[in-house]
Amino acid sequence: MTSPRVVALSGGVGAARFLQGLVRVVPPECITAIVNTGDDSEFYGLHVSPDIDIVLYTLAGLVDSEQGWGVVDDTFNALQMLEQYGLESWFRLGDRDLATQIHRTELLRGGQTLSQVTDHLRNRLNVTSLVVPMSDQPVRTWIRTPEGWLPFQEYFVKRRTADDVLDIEVRGAAEACPAPEVIEALDAADRVVICPSNPLVSIGTILAVPGIRDALRRCGAPVVAISPIVGGATLKGPADRMMRAAGMEVSAVGVARAYADFLDVMVLDEQDRTLAPRVESLGIRAVVTDTIMRDLHAKERLAWATLAALGSCSRGRSPHQVHPGR
Amino acid sequence: MTSPRVVALSGGVGAARFLQGLVRVVPPECITAIVNTGDDSEFYGLHVSPDIDIVLYTLAGLVDSEQGWGVVDDTFNALQMLEQYGLESWFRLGDRDLATQIHRTELLRGGQTLSQVTDHLRNRLNVTSLVVPMSDQPVRTWIRTPEGWLPFQEYFVKRRTADDVLDIEVRGAAEACPAPEVIEALDAADRVVICPSNPLVSIGTILAVPGIRDALRRCGAPVVAISPIVGGATLKGPADRMMRAAGMEVSAVGVARAYADFLDVMVLDEQDRTLAPRVESLGIRAVVTDTIMRDLHAKERLAWATLAALGSCSRGRSPHQVHPGR
Repeated sequence: MTSPRVVALSGGVGAARFLQGLVRVVPPECITAIVNTGDDSEFYGLHVSPDIDIVLYTLAGLVDSEQGWGVVDDTFNALQMLEQYGLESWFRLGDRDLATQIHRTELLRGGQTLSQVTDHLRNRLNVTSLVVPMSDQPVRTWIRTPEGWLPFQEYFVKRRTADDVLDIEVRGAAEACPAPEVIEALDAADRVVICPSNPLVSIGTILAVPGIRDALRRCGAPVVAISPIVGGATLKGPADRMMRAAGMEVSAVGVARAYADFLDVMVLDEQDRTLAPRVESLGIRAVVTDTIMRDLHAKERLAWATLAALGSCSRGRSPHQVHPGR
Repeated sequence: MTSPRVVALSGGVGAARFLQGLVRVVPPECITAIVNTGDDSEFYGLHVSPDIDIVLYTLAGLVDSEQGWGVVDDTFNALQMLEQYGLESWFRLGDRDLATQIHRTELLRGGQTLSQVTDHLRNRLNVTSLVVPMSDQPVRTWIRTPEGWLPFQEYFVKRRTADDVLDIEVRGAAEACPAPEVIEALDAADRVVICPSNPLVSIGTILAVPGIRDALRRCGAPVVAISPIVGGATLKGPADRMMRAAGMEVSAVGVARAYADFLDVMVLDEQDRTLAPRVESLGIRAVVTDTIMRDLHAKERLAWATLAALGSCSRGRSPHQVHPGR
């Protein structure tokens, strides 16, 4: 039996945790993660791709699993010295993490694309799943707050999401194109998973790159999403407040509605069981399971349940007869 | 009594150790160190200025005094991660040290000159002596060995000076000009000290920048050098082998001869007392003292003896009546 080719749309921490489970139920080399780069930023002249690094470090087994980002047991000596040079240090780049940014920046300056650099890093970290930035062009998320427009990381890390979100702009998206492997991977996919990430500034950013949403609509593979909203709130991050500010219903229904034009199945947490009929009224199948990723076992179980939810689902031109699991 | 303005021509470790003594016998703010940049190199896309950093870290009290370079108690976690990315790591940049290179590189890319960047770093490290690169243009020392031409750091660090030196080229020197403060400092100096550095690849590199040697010849201040060769050998580094290969006498006499066109006084170690008449036969006053910088006290004593050696020495147009000491 051929393993299914699974494409996952991914933000940062929540997505990486889901992917940690996914690589245990599908051969890792059959997985392609298409990762948000709207959070990318420059610190000290270095190109930082936070979501890509979270995914890479997590799949490489290097991540600081407590916080969900950065390298485990990292030190912060370079950052301390940069402080001595009078620089801001609110974006906590550890010494090992800095090495990634130094190397990425050198390769980018040498003319490689972000996809090429990401593929190189992935290889060196022995990550066998493909990790693909949504675009090789710069796309940057900006957040309008009562204090004015802020680059995403200033809103998210420096100001700890304390500001009201009045508006979101994904600058550069309209001019960007998907990275070379993105559309190809979606076209060849047997299953597409929308990870439990922020529907506005993680998945929404990916969808803002022209061509990606269309590819999801037309692709032969069924598309499943895991709701990042459980019991009316996010487990982590500002997605709930952002959705409220954007006039969206803060629930799995609100998320399903945002993806309604391409979504086949929505995975809801058991706490949200009563929302299932409302999701189904959108023409999206609702599957209820425990979505809280407490530990590795729970992540694996969720990945299994997510793929199982697609078991009998087909858009009618899936090229392989596939089943989840090995 | 006005403090003398002292200008020191400086390489790396030996010079920095001498300067550590000098700042204890002259007010640090009266000292300008003109530093070799022929050793500068690029690692991981970062601009590294090894001799400038040795001087800065030493004067800031941050240096790893065992090895004479790098930051004390530094960690090497970024370097270890860069190894994981398949990169060479023979140039041992610690995490704190890397911060200097990251910050320098960002400022240089932003359009600042190496002098401006060095002055900024000096300030942030609370170094009150001026530290000036010999030039803002790239000058790079290359070493010809039986294996071919090697960039200086490959010869010096990667291959640990194991190769025979057939030739030395200071590439870019002919097209370079002295950094803005260099000639000005020499013209305004009350005393000039040539630190106990390699006469070929440290001081020789500085002298290769057009205008600097002329400024030393014409300046009103007397010029004193401390011999880096003691008892026919160097305490550290390949200066002795390089001098031999260049057909120079490997002794304080050989060093004095290399500086004869601008040198007034040569400080010799007591082991080389018998060489004094030969130095004096070059028209250079010889002063004999203990030049081994065992500890801070010895460094201070050597600095004192060096300035004292110039006490009654004048080129006749020194703008101030000055005496060494505070």
